[in-house]
Amino acid sequence: MTVRIGVIGTGMIGRDHTRRIQQVLAGAEITALSDYNPDAARAVQADLAPDATVHDKGEDLIAADNVDAVLVCSTGSTHEAYVLAAIAAGKPCFCEKPLATTADGAKRIVDAEVAHGSRLVQVGFMRRYDAGYRMLKDVVDTQIGAPLMVHAAHRNPTVPEQYVTPMAIHDTLIHEIDVFRWLLDDDYVSAQVVFPRKSSHAHARVADPQIVLLETAKGIRIDVEIFVNCRYGYDIQCQVVGEEGLANLPEPMAITMRKQAMMQNTILTDWKDRFVESYDVELADFVQAAARGTASGPSSWDGYVAAISSDACVEAQEKSGQIIPISLPARPALYD
Amino acid sequence: MTVRIGVIGTGMIGRDHTRRIQQVLAGAEITALSDYNPDAARAVQADLAPDATVHDKGEDLIAADNVDAVLVCSTGSTHEAYVLAAIAAGKPCFCEKPLATTADGAKRIVDAEVAHGSRLVQVGFMRRYDAGYRMLKDVVDTQIGAPLMVHAAHRNPTVPEQYVTPMAIHDTLIHEIDVFRWLLDDDYVSAQVVFPRKSSHAHARVADPQIVLLETAKGIRIDVEIFVNCRYGYDIQCQVVGEEGLANLPEPMAITMRKQAMMQNTILTDWKDRFVESYDVELADFVQAAARGTASGPSSWDGYVAAISSDACVEAQEKSGQIIPISLPARPALYD
Amino acid sequence: MTVRIGVIGTGMIGRDHTRRIQQVLAGAEITALSDYNPDAARAVQADLAPDATVHDKGEDLIAADNVDAVLVCSTGSTHEAYVLAAIAAGKPCFCEKPLATTADGAKRIVDAEVAHGSRLVQVGFMRRYDAGYRMLKDVVDTQIGAPLMVHAAHRNPTVPEQYVTPMAIHDTLIHEIDVFRWLLDDDYVSAQVVFPRKSSHAHARVADPQIVLLETAKGIRIDVEIFVNCRYGYDIQCQVVGEEGLANLPEPMAITMRKQAMMQNTILTDWKDRFVESYDVELADFVQAAARGTASGPSSWDGYVAAISSDACVEAQEKSGQIIPISLPARPALYD
Amino acid sequence: MTVRIGVIGTGMIGRDHTRRIQQVLAGAEITALSDYNPDAARAVQADLAPDATVHDKGEDLIAADNVDAVLVCSTGSTHEAYVLAAIAAGKPCFCEKPLATTADGAKRIVDAEVAHGSRLVQVGFMRRYDAGYRMLKDVVDTQIGAPLMVHAAHRNPTVPEQYVTPMAIHDTLIHEIDVFRWLLDDDYVSAQVVFPRKSSHAHARVADPQIVLLETAKGIRIDVEIFVNCRYGYDIQCQVVGEEGLANLPEPMAITMRKQAMMQNTILTDWKDRFVESYDVELADFVQAAARGTASGPSSWDGYVAAISSDACVEAQEKSGQIIPISLPARPALYD
Repeated sequence: MTVRIGVIGTGMIGRDHTRRIQQVLAGAEITALSDYNPDAARAVQADLAPDATVHDKGEDLIAADNVDAVLVCSTGSTHEAYVLAAIAAGKPCFCEKPLATTADGAKRIVDAEVAHGSRLVQVGFMRRYDAGYRMLKDVVDTQIGAPLMVHAAHRNPTVPEQYVTPMAIHDTLIHEIDVFRWLLDDDYVSAQVVFPRKSSHAHARVADPQIVLLETAKGIRIDVEIFVNCRYGYDIQCQVVGEEGLANLPEPMAITMRKQAMMQNTILTDWKDRFVESYDVELADFVQAAARGTASGPSSWDGYVAAISSDACVEAQEKSGQIIPISLPARPALYD
Repeated sequence: MTVRIGVIGTGMIGRDHTRRIQQVLAGAEITALSDYNPDAARAVQADLAPDATVHDKGEDLIAADNVDAVLVCSTGSTHEAYVLAAIAAGKPCFCEKPLATTADGAKRIVDAEVAHGSRLVQVGFMRRYDAGYRMLKDVVDTQIGAPLMVHAAHRNPTVPEQYVTPMAIHDTLIHEIDVFRWLLDDDYVSAQVVFPRKSSHAHARVADPQIVLLETAKGIRIDVEIFVNCRYGYDIQCQVVGEEGLANLPEPMAITMRKQAMMQNTILTDWKDRFVESYDVELADFVQAAARGTASGPSSWDGYVAAISSDACVEAQEKSGQIIPISLPARPALYD
Repeated sequence: MTVRIGVIGTGMIGRDHTRRIQQVLAGAEITALSDYNPDAARAVQADLAPDATVHDKGEDLIAADNVDAVLVCSTGSTHEAYVLAAIAAGKPCFCEKPLATTADGAKRIVDAEVAHGSRLVQVGFMRRYDAGYRMLKDVVDTQIGAPLMVHAAHRNPTVPEQYVTPMAIHDTLIHEIDVFRWLLDDDYVSAQVVFPRKSSHAHARVADPQIVLLETAKGIRIDVEIFVNCRYGYDIQCQVVGEEGLANLPEPMAITMRKQAMMQNTILTDWKDRFVESYDVELADFVQAAARGTASGPSSWDGYVAAISSDACVEAQEKSGQIIPISLPARPALYD
Repeated sequence: MTVRIGVIGTGMIGRDHTRRIQQVLAGAEITALSDYNPDAARAVQADLAPDATVHDKGEDLIAADNVDAVLVCSTGSTHEAYVLAAIAAGKPCFCEKPLATTADGAKRIVDAEVAHGSRLVQVGFMRRYDAGYRMLKDVVDTQIGAPLMVHAAHRNPTVPEQYVTPMAIHDTLIHEIDVFRWLLDDDYVSAQVVFPRKSSHAHARVADPQIVLLETAKGIRIDVEIFVNCRYGYDIQCQVVGEEGLANLPEPMAITMRKQAMMQNTILTDWKDRFVESYDVELADFVQAAARGTASGPSSWDGYVAAISSDACVEAQEKSGQIIPISLPARPALYD
């Protein structure tokens, strides 16, 4: 069976997912496209999916007979409504992050999916599909004893002027917030943020770097350096310290050269290259689950918890040094 | 357009390529299967390609109307005849190594393809599609100056009793023979083999380890350690030394652990894991070229040169210490 | 000129320093020995320094005519009195850590040395003499821009029953407290301690691991993991993140092996091996300065600041999660 | 007892050894100096050893009453005569390489020392004292099974015009020739040299790079790349492959930085920095043995075998591609 997929939002990521379904992955085809700018949808149709229908409204695409499943790639503020519509239609739905712009919005999606009675939503937390994190999870689960601490860093070479302090949580740390829950099978109970001396390369409206300290229900302590003007590269580090040993996230594959009095490996500078393969894997997972009428991977619940946790981290930024408690409602059985 | 592919030989690799086309890659489907054991073909049909036709004879599969392109995955001695039949039918053909069991056989394929007038054959030298070798080639081409030397190793943890000395060339070194020609854009002019003291773990009929010394037309000197009872893992090493610096083939991605007084990375032990992703890439390349009615990647000419070069290496084993010259006929323009 | 040195305290470290002066280093000789157990002093005399005089009281050794300079290697509670006596005698004095058991005691030494008017005291913070830290300091000073953060770890495989929670500061973190001041040319302004879930390998009276968060006058944020039952080895990690890049303390030299499906380096397990060479260098520095009648390296002031800072860290342990301010008196000009 | 040492030849290395004895090492003092240029000897006397006597002739220094042991640091052609004189005087003698400029000359020294009846000569093969090689030898002896192969490289960034092809053996490979005999406890039985395409950075009179292939009595095969215009650094590599695994010589300690899109370690460029610590250790060993009236470490026999082996390698350069046999006389019992 070939899964017929409709894409809402044909900007950079929507176009890329269309290419992925059409040219890379087995088992699915793009049959419908929609964008708030109809010309953008038609351009993607022309380039990548000539047989797809084009719809002015995302709601129409969701309802269309030639659509079995939906990719929501539109701007963040529209996600909640589209995902709710897909659930209402009983169609599997892949939603790029954020699931909703507020924790309450994410909660409404969780409630709708629970009312539906089975998983329909996958949230685009692609790191869970990265080969490196998967190897790390395997080692954490089997080789190093009970995890006690995580030391992590999320570094970008530079950010544009519009990147302000809270975006360090909502746009940057959000990936760590999700992937550490999955890696450790745990939830957060508190957050603290401290600000080192600011880099002279950071513009006026962003405090950079920041250090976020998270505590989990099991008592694991996590420190994450966020440094979005680090200059030297896009660098994701994660070390898990357990009772019997420790393990590090692998570095991206690189050629070791000896040249000009240096042993050197290239470091990536563009975040789009870092997890590029995990996008293929997450969509392949979506296609396989959608063929069975359901969804797997990061759930609505994960999106909701990420929203609650990141709200606490933003409060911890505002009250720097204070330890902000995080409390979660009970997890519905659907997400066990 | 979906490329309709027939598979001749449904053993381990034929089954795996069928899975790859059906479940992983976009753009193609398996529409026909054949095996000298018809039950084997029908088992793959049942598991992976229920709509495929099953043919008793490979020649019939090649001729079938529902077959646009052919994968030759049968036993090596049958390759030449099937590839010649595919060329005669004007159908793109992917042939697992060896292209033929003799250099003369490979030459007949080259001649037939040249007579046909365009590329139809891709040989299954998958290392050219490995991300690590591709990164290395990019660095060799742009970063380290003119290459002068290559230091390489091909190590297996162990081999079965039927693995005898010449197989170190035909089954093991054959991959280096091809990939270094591609990496260096060069051909071999001589070969020498020396035998270190034999490992006590090697069985009676195999001299192990061996060191093969190759010289290229440009004067590059290559040393390859072949050690197929190295015990510790499946390990492929390649260092290119150029006028301005040197570069190493990346290690496979691995988790660095600290545990029990050791900093440690796991080394692969199964060769099937080492280049697993390159099989996907080589077949995707085949599918894309086949959709245009042609072939790209490792050619019949490459298969022919590999056969000539490995024959010289086997002679060099037999006359250990002697330098055996290698000479090639002129390359037809089709392969420029 | 050969510097004539007296050693007070001939236990493990006193004996080792005697061996170092007698058998390894040029420029000095051990001429006097003292221990609260005279038999211990005589045993070292017999083994390593037959021409040395043996004194019942440390004060007599300090006063002896055949003694130009003093090594204080006795139990910590006796350090203050001996160092004050050496200053009163105007003799250069190397004092193993701690300089005194209280900040007030260290202050009395600072005051006496300031009154004397020139440096006479070197404190045994040997990490400043470690080749790795020296390389790191050079890089921090010249290559990575203004330092913003330090991520560090101090791990021991195991500790005995008598090692209780505050010793994580006084005996373990004390080395980081000193060496980071030197590395960053900075002082601490606050400390916070948080406790991750306790390792099941830690005995009842020690909270292990701990994370200490320090803030400096320049705004640098330092996190140090202290984990004294980490099982896998004695491991000292230090990463400095600057505005232009980051630098790591080198790993101790080790052989990389490939064996049994692992790429592996041995990790040290005995702390005595980690900085063994720095003891030679610190004593050579002491001998050279003593030959000129003075002292260099870690000063009384450094010992005093270490005492104030570690007192704040112990308070931060007791009030876990709270940020404890650290304030220092003005630094006397003698220590500029 | 303080060993009284005379130095013959006060050029760069003689001055450095004088500094080492006077300022770094315990147990010896420089009491006599000699140089064919008496002003040079007097300059070293003034700077480093004011109490030393200065002798016009090396033979007088050897005979002087205030000299217990001799360092021969003069030009290579004078070594044989001075070492023979020291043996005749029964005084321990450290001789910088080469022991003699011909194998016959080295043989005369061996014969004289055998006639004397006990070890008096240490040859300045300092790599045996390098901490990295010592760690490697320990691992080779205990961890990786019987050694089968060695892959090595000796690279210099550049060499001056006067460095001609045979110097790749006599001045460069000579260190590998000695240290591999010690590392493997083995002797050479044949040598072969092949010449890769020449680097465009090599001047007219040197073939560069070269690959030397050695075979040992145990059947171990060694390949050494010699590349003295490699541009990027002074780099010494050694990998030993054994029946159970392999081990690599450690890299010199270096800071890993992340900066400007590269993970990077500095590579040394000056050979004098690479083994600088091993000079201290070799002379400390000489002093300790000299205090007992004898010598240890690399012997006259080792110097003699190195001469025979390097003569064969030079012949192998001249007859490139040919395998040149190496045969040694029986080893006198003195050197067992």
